[in-house]
Amino acid sequence: MPSPYVQERSTENYRDAFQVKLTRSAILRPVPEPESDELWAQNCASDYMVTCQWTVEGGWEVPEIKPFDNFSISPLASCLHYATQCFEGMKAFRGLDGNVRLFRPYRNAKRLAMSAKCVSLPQFDADYLVWLIEKLLQMDIDSSQCPPGASPRSSMRLITSQVDKIRAWPGGFGYAKVGANYGPSFSLHHEAQAANYDQVLWLFGPEGRVTEVGARNFFAIVRNRESGLLELLTALTEDKLILEGVTRNSVIQLVRSRLADELEVIESYFTIQYLKTALEEGRLLEAFVSGTAFFIKPVSVIRCDNEDFNLPQKENSTIKNFTSLIKTWLYDIMFGKEEYSWSRIVERDLGDFKLFSP
Amino acid sequence: MPSPYVQERSTENYRDAFQVKLTRSAILRPVPEPESDELWAQNCASDYMVTCQWTVEGGWEVPEIKPFDNFSISPLASCLHYATQCFEGMKAFRGLDGNVRLFRPYRNAKRLAMSAKCVSLPQFDADYLVWLIEKLLQMDIDSSQCPPGASPRSSMRLITSQVDKIRAWPGGFGYAKVGANYGPSFSLHHEAQAANYDQVLWLFGPEGRVTEVGARNFFAIVRNRESGLLELLTALTEDKLILEGVTRNSVIQLVRSRLADELEVIESYFTIQYLKTALEEGRLLEAFVSGTAFFIKPVSVIRCDNEDFNLPQKENSTIKNFTSLIKTWLYDIMFGKEEYSWSRIVERDLGDFKLFSP
Repeated sequence: MPSPYVQERSTENYRDAFQVKLTRSAILRPVPEPESDELWAQNCASDYMVTCQWTVEGGWEVPEIKPFDNFSISPLASCLHYATQCFEGMKAFRGLDGNVRLFRPYRNAKRLAMSAKCVSLPQFDADYLVWLIEKLLQMDIDSSQCPPGASPRSSMRLITSQVDKIRAWPGGFGYAKVGANYGPSFSLHHEAQAANYDQVLWLFGPEGRVTEVGARNFFAIVRNRESGLLELLTALTEDKLILEGVTRNSVIQLVRSRLADELEVIESYFTIQYLKTALEEGRLLEAFVSGTAFFIKPVSVIRCDNEDFNLPQKENSTIKNFTSLIKTWLYDIMFGKEEYSWSRIVERDLGDFKLFSP
Repeated sequence: MPSPYVQERSTENYRDAFQVKLTRSAILRPVPEPESDELWAQNCASDYMVTCQWTVEGGWEVPEIKPFDNFSISPLASCLHYATQCFEGMKAFRGLDGNVRLFRPYRNAKRLAMSAKCVSLPQFDADYLVWLIEKLLQMDIDSSQCPPGASPRSSMRLITSQVDKIRAWPGGFGYAKVGANYGPSFSLHHEAQAANYDQVLWLFGPEGRVTEVGARNFFAIVRNRESGLLELLTALTEDKLILEGVTRNSVIQLVRSRLADELEVIESYFTIQYLKTALEEGRLLEAFVSGTAFFIKPVSVIRCDNEDFNLPQKENSTIKNFTSLIKTWLYDIMFGKEEYSWSRIVERDLGDFKLFSP
């Protein structure tokens, strides 16, 4: 039987060549309690970090695991002036069996390399990066934990962007996880929050094409007026306006493989007016957002043209709840209730690897 | 007679309230020679820098002048992940009379505040910032110098962007000096340089609207086919696609006031095809780019659709050379050959100001 990881990992064989320098920390900080304010503030870090220097002359140096600390950065550095920066978000889940798991980490690692290219930074090998993340997690594998994507609200209140504020454009870089997509979008996000909405639903063009929600992908379940069949609508990635989320891809794959007879996935253009009409006609059954940070969250309200549109909520209803079903499937995979190729257990044993102190 | 600075400075009176902490440097580095490689590498800094901390609770603290040094930045800082960053470029010119001058610094300071708002950063008072820059310059007023916008080439070779790569879009942030406008544009810039062009001429839309050149504004002098009159064409700023450059604004003002009868300034939409047609018909007389970094530079070539279009060069010709004339006017103002309200002499005397060591 092939390894369950085989489809997610491309070059297992050359892992033996990976190296990392290790400097141990003298002081280990206490781990925040689950659900504590400290944890929710989202500004506490692990005891260690991984760094890797790159120079024009020598390329990538040997990476280092070392105590978490501030960076020393020249005021002239281009990352501070020209947004030559990119990032990824990934969680490590403590499963019900006590194991720590990563969820499709190669997708993040490959996207990081793509994003780096987008801002003219050197690309780091995706397999090497996942290996390093595993090494980092091993450093505090007994204390690692991550909240399963909860947030104070159980559902999301969205507000559509105004027609004169655009997050991304064809020919731009909306598809990459580069800093440049975030800073300029914060002001609208803050306005949304001040008005008691959680996120901005970014529209594009005069026709109001639905793209994505803050840093999350958007899905709607609509009954097609002509065919009477259920469709799971989400923006397409081909025009490079939106980020191709790991969770988005996972939702689509699960629905295609497990709900093929009930719910057809449509990656396409669709407008806010299309959703409004579907809602008025009772054909918009559910909407949700997907992303690593907040996992899968149903949408309860979409504000558009100064009007709140309330979406059907099925939390305690007997009607089939696709959002909840998809969320459960993903949760079970992430936390090890279901064994699946997307979930990658982090080995506890440091000894296998070429960690060395210089 | 009113102060020549009055139009550029808004609140002279409350300068008395400005403060700065001063920590002197124990070691002063040698000043690079004019035209030296060290200077051209553009990565040497002055001995001092100005910093100012801001906190949610307390707002801006008292600014500090201190020895130039690396910043200590948390790996979690949003400036590194989300491009919550903006900047300005400004030069200090050692005039022919030995005085050090700033050129319209309030424009930069006000634009910095606008850019900060664009990325949800707190805004710093423009007058206070100019005052601080003057304090910083006073710290090494005898060694300060700046090359007058020269570059290895005397003219610019431009290559138009492909239709599927855009720098900015309506509803975006192309008008602000935020990091997000730069990183993602570097790859095309590097491609241009590899193909022996200096800068990308960024077009927008399927019709190929001319916007700006790298981080510079673009001007073309075209004889209007119908009227037979000369027009100075440049992209308009109203749709917020391009940066409203300080040099751009100065060029426009000087031409309007000094060449009103010869050359009409037209801030408008115009396409690359419009320029090509004008060139073919002998009506494109000059083109140049403007910006703080490289001042005013004539354009010699525009590559478009795999073809080089050579522009008339007047360097040693007897035909009237508007580019050269405008450049001379600006140079004379910057270096104090002509006294003008745009040029601001930095006082030598530190004693006037409330510098204090903590």
